[in-house]
Amino acid sequence: MNDTKILLSEDEMPRQWYNIQADLPKPLPPVIHPGTGQPIGPDDLAPLFPMGLIMQEVSQERYIDIPEEILEVYKLWRPSPLIRAYRWEKALDTPAKIYYKWEGVSPPGSHKPNTAVAQAYYNKKEGVKRITTETGAGQWGSALSFACNLFDIECKVYMVRISYDQKPYRRIMMETWGAKCVPSPSTETQAGRMILKQDPDSPGSLGIAISEAVEIAAKNADTKYALGSVLNHVLLHQTIVGLEAQAQFKKAGDYPDVVIGCVGGGSNYAGFALPFVRDKIVDKRKTRFIAVEPTACPTMTKGLYRYDFGDTACTTPLIKMYTLGHNFIPAPIHAGGLRYHGMAPILCHLYELGLMKAVAYHQKAVFESAISFARAEGFIPAPETAHAIKATMDEAIRCRESGEKKVIAFNNSGHGHFDLAAYQKYLNNELEDYEYPEEKIKEALAHLPKIDA
Amino acid sequence: MNDTKILLSEDEMPRQWYNIQADLPKPLPPVIHPGTGQPIGPDDLAPLFPMGLIMQEVSQERYIDIPEEILEVYKLWRPSPLIRAYRWEKALDTPAKIYYKWEGVSPPGSHKPNTAVAQAYYNKKEGVKRITTETGAGQWGSALSFACNLFDIECKVYMVRISYDQKPYRRIMMETWGAKCVPSPSTETQAGRMILKQDPDSPGSLGIAISEAVEIAAKNADTKYALGSVLNHVLLHQTIVGLEAQAQFKKAGDYPDVVIGCVGGGSNYAGFALPFVRDKIVDKRKTRFIAVEPTACPTMTKGLYRYDFGDTACTTPLIKMYTLGHNFIPAPIHAGGLRYHGMAPILCHLYELGLMKAVAYHQKAVFESAISFARAEGFIPAPETAHAIKATMDEAIRCRESGEKKVIAFNNSGHGHFDLAAYQKYLNNELEDYEYPEEKIKEALAHLPKIDA
Repeated sequence: MNDTKILLSEDEMPRQWYNIQADLPKPLPPVIHPGTGQPIGPDDLAPLFPMGLIMQEVSQERYIDIPEEILEVYKLWRPSPLIRAYRWEKALDTPAKIYYKWEGVSPPGSHKPNTAVAQAYYNKKEGVKRITTETGAGQWGSALSFACNLFDIECKVYMVRISYDQKPYRRIMMETWGAKCVPSPSTETQAGRMILKQDPDSPGSLGIAISEAVEIAAKNADTKYALGSVLNHVLLHQTIVGLEAQAQFKKAGDYPDVVIGCVGGGSNYAGFALPFVRDKIVDKRKTRFIAVEPTACPTMTKGLYRYDFGDTACTTPLIKMYTLGHNFIPAPIHAGGLRYHGMAPILCHLYELGLMKAVAYHQKAVFESAISFARAEGFIPAPETAHAIKATMDEAIRCRESGEKKVIAFNNSGHGHFDLAAYQKYLNNELEDYEYPEEKIKEALAHLPKIDA
Repeated sequence: MNDTKILLSEDEMPRQWYNIQADLPKPLPPVIHPGTGQPIGPDDLAPLFPMGLIMQEVSQERYIDIPEEILEVYKLWRPSPLIRAYRWEKALDTPAKIYYKWEGVSPPGSHKPNTAVAQAYYNKKEGVKRITTETGAGQWGSALSFACNLFDIECKVYMVRISYDQKPYRRIMMETWGAKCVPSPSTETQAGRMILKQDPDSPGSLGIAISEAVEIAAKNADTKYALGSVLNHVLLHQTIVGLEAQAQFKKAGDYPDVVIGCVGGGSNYAGFALPFVRDKIVDKRKTRFIAVEPTACPTMTKGLYRYDFGDTACTTPLIKMYTLGHNFIPAPIHAGGLRYHGMAPILCHLYELGLMKAVAYHQKAVFESAISFARAEGFIPAPETAHAIKATMDEAIRCRESGEKKVIAFNNSGHGHFDLAAYQKYLNNELEDYEYPEEKIKEALAHLPKIDA
C-alpha cells in the first residue's frame, strides 16, 4: 500500500500565492460605489483595509510572494497533509481514489488562519494597532484572534449574540489568544445601540455584527477591519492550500478528475480549487469543479448573478455575485459558515463562465455522509466541510456504479470539535431539513439594487 | 532558521515497540493475587484481557513487532510531528531549545489511540466481540471508541455520571464513532445497582466505573476489558511516541538534556520517555527525566511505594506502585486525567531506582503556563498536558538565568478543545488551587493492604 498521507517538507511549501485574476478568460466585473454608481478605487477602501491588502484585491500579477514572516507562522502547521482516504474508499466499495486536504491541523482548526495570518501581517506592517471583525459561530473570529496575537495587534470580535451565549467554546478560544469578544448587537456602536433600542433582546445577526465592526474601524484611524471570506485577497491567501495539494498530487503520481469543496463565502473552496482551475484554463485540463452549498442557502443553485450589497445594512460597496438578496434570513442549519447570502465574486465569475458547477444538499444527508467519513477515516469534520464530503460520497458511489476509477479530491476545511451538539441531534434524529422557498428568493431578488455595470 | 516541524515519512515510522523490561537494572516486582498473596500468572488475567496483550504485559523481549494492521491505522495521523517551539523560546527569552512531540493530531486528539488501536486489534484477533471500559472526562473512552469502530468491535464505555452530564462533547464523539456510552453507576451491573441503592443520585467515580466495566467483561465470554494507562502493555504501545521522537531528534541533530511529561496513570510520559531512559541505562546518557503531577494528586511526590489495589472497590490484583491509597478522593481539578491514586509500575520502579524525578504543581500556575504556550505556539493544550508545559517553562527560565543552552523536550499529549471551560475559569480568576492534606495521605496510607513481596 502507498502512503496514506502525502506530506511536503517545509522547504517544499509554496513561496507565492496564486492570483487567478491573471488567467481569467474575461476580467472580473468592477466593484461599484453605491452612491456614485462608479467603480470604486483603492482610496475608497483605505479607511477599512491596509493598502497592502487593497493592492492585492485588485492585483493582476499571476504570483504574489508570501512574506517570510507569514511563512514562518504557516510552518506551525503547514504544509498540511493530503490524505488518501483508503478506508473510506473501502467502506464505500468504490473504485475511485479519494484524496482530502486536511486543514483541521491548524491551531484554530480550519483553513481560516491562512488568510488571518496574512491580514494581520499586512496590517501590522502599516502600523495598525487594532483590528475589528465579526464572527458567527466563531471559526473566523478565533482564526483572527490567533493571528493578531502573533503579530501583537489588538483584536476585537463582534460575535452574533445568540452564538456568543450558546456556543461559548470558540469565544473562550479567542480570549485564550488574548482577543476581546463582544456580543453583538453591543452598546459600543451606533449601529448596535440602534438595534438594541428597537429590540433589547435582539439575538443579533452577521449583518449587524459586520455593521458594528465596520463602524469602529471607519471611525478610528489606528483601527482596520478584516473579512474572512468573499474578497479577492482572502481567496488569494487561501491558494496556499491548492498549491500545496498540486505538489502533493505530483508526489502521489495522480491528478484530480473532480475537485470538490463547500461554499459559504467561498474562500476554502477557492483556495483549494483555483490552482487547479488555472490548469483547466491554461493547460486545458478536463477537471470538473463542484461547489457544494446547503439547500437552506442555495446561493449559486437558486440565486441570481447581480450586483448586491455584502451586508444586510447596505453599508458595503456593490459586488457582482450570485446572491439570495442582502435581506436573506438563513434557516438555523448547523453549518453556520455556509449561511451567507452572497458568494466570492471570483467563484461566481467562474461559475458564470461555465468553469465550475454547483450542487446543494440537505443537512440530514450531509451529516449521514460525515458519519460515514468519520467512522472510516477517524477525523470528525465540521458541518460545513461535511457538505463537500456528501458530494464526494455521491461521486464515489457513481464510480461504484459505473466502474470508473476517478480521482476525487476535496478540501477537508476543518474539524467538528465545536459542532458535536449538531452531531448529537443527527444521531438522535432531531435534525430538520430546510429548503429555502422559491417565492422568498423571488421576493428578495426583486429588491436588489438597480445597478448593472 | 531551521525547520519548525521535524517530520518523519510513513516509511520512517518505527516498526517495533520498545519494551524497557528487557533493559531494567532490576526486574519489576511481581503483581500479587490479593487472595493467595502469590504472584499472578497469565491465566489469572485471561477473563479480562486477550492473551496477546497478557503476553506483552509480562514479555521480556526488547522489541516487539507492530502488526501491519496497526501500522496502517497509525498512518492516519502518525508519525506525529516533533515541533521546535521557536516562538515560545523567544517569548520566554531563553537560550534553551524547546521541542515538543505533538500528539493532538490524532482523531481523538491525544496519545490514547496509540494503545487503543493496538488493544482493539489484539482483541479482534482473538474473536472478542465487545470491549468494555471506563472513562472519566472521556479522553480514553473516545480513543477506544475510535479504535473499536475501525476493527468492528462493539464498544461500551462506562462514563462517570457527573462527567456524562456535564461534559457531553466527548460522549457525543464516542457515539459518532458508534460506541455505546452509559452513565455510571448504571443499573446494568451488580456494582452499579448496589451503589444506586445506597445513593440514587450518586455522581459516580472512576473506581465505580471500573468495577462496572470489569464485571461485564468477567461475566461474558465474548467480552473483554480494556485499560487506558498504568499497565505494562499500555506503556509498551505508547513507546511509538518516544521512538519517533528519537528518530526526529537525530534528524534535527539534537538530543534532549531534559525529558518532561505529565503523569496520571503514566502512559503518555512513559511512551515518550522510555526509549530515552533506555539510552540512559544502556548508553549512559546523562538525560534528566521529570514526571509532572498536580499538587492535588501528588502520587509520586507524596505517596508511598507500596502494594495497593488499582481500583477503589479492591477488585484488581495488587500492584507495587506509588500510591495515595485506593480510597483517595481527588479534588475537582480540571486535569481529569491526572486524578488517579496510583501510577504505572514501570515509572514507579524507575523513580525508585533514581532514574527519574517528579515534581508537583498547582493548577493556577499550570494554566498560566498553558496560556503562555498557546499565545506563542498557537495550539491550546489539554490541562493535563499543561503540567508538562509548566515544568518545561520553569526549566527554560532557569536556563535564561544560568545562560545554559539546554535541549528540553516534552510530550504535548493532547489538545484542550474540550477543556475550554477550564480556560475560561482561569481567565476569569475563578480557579482554585488544591493541596492534598498531609494528614489525609497518612490516613489513607495507613489502610494499605498488608502485603510486601
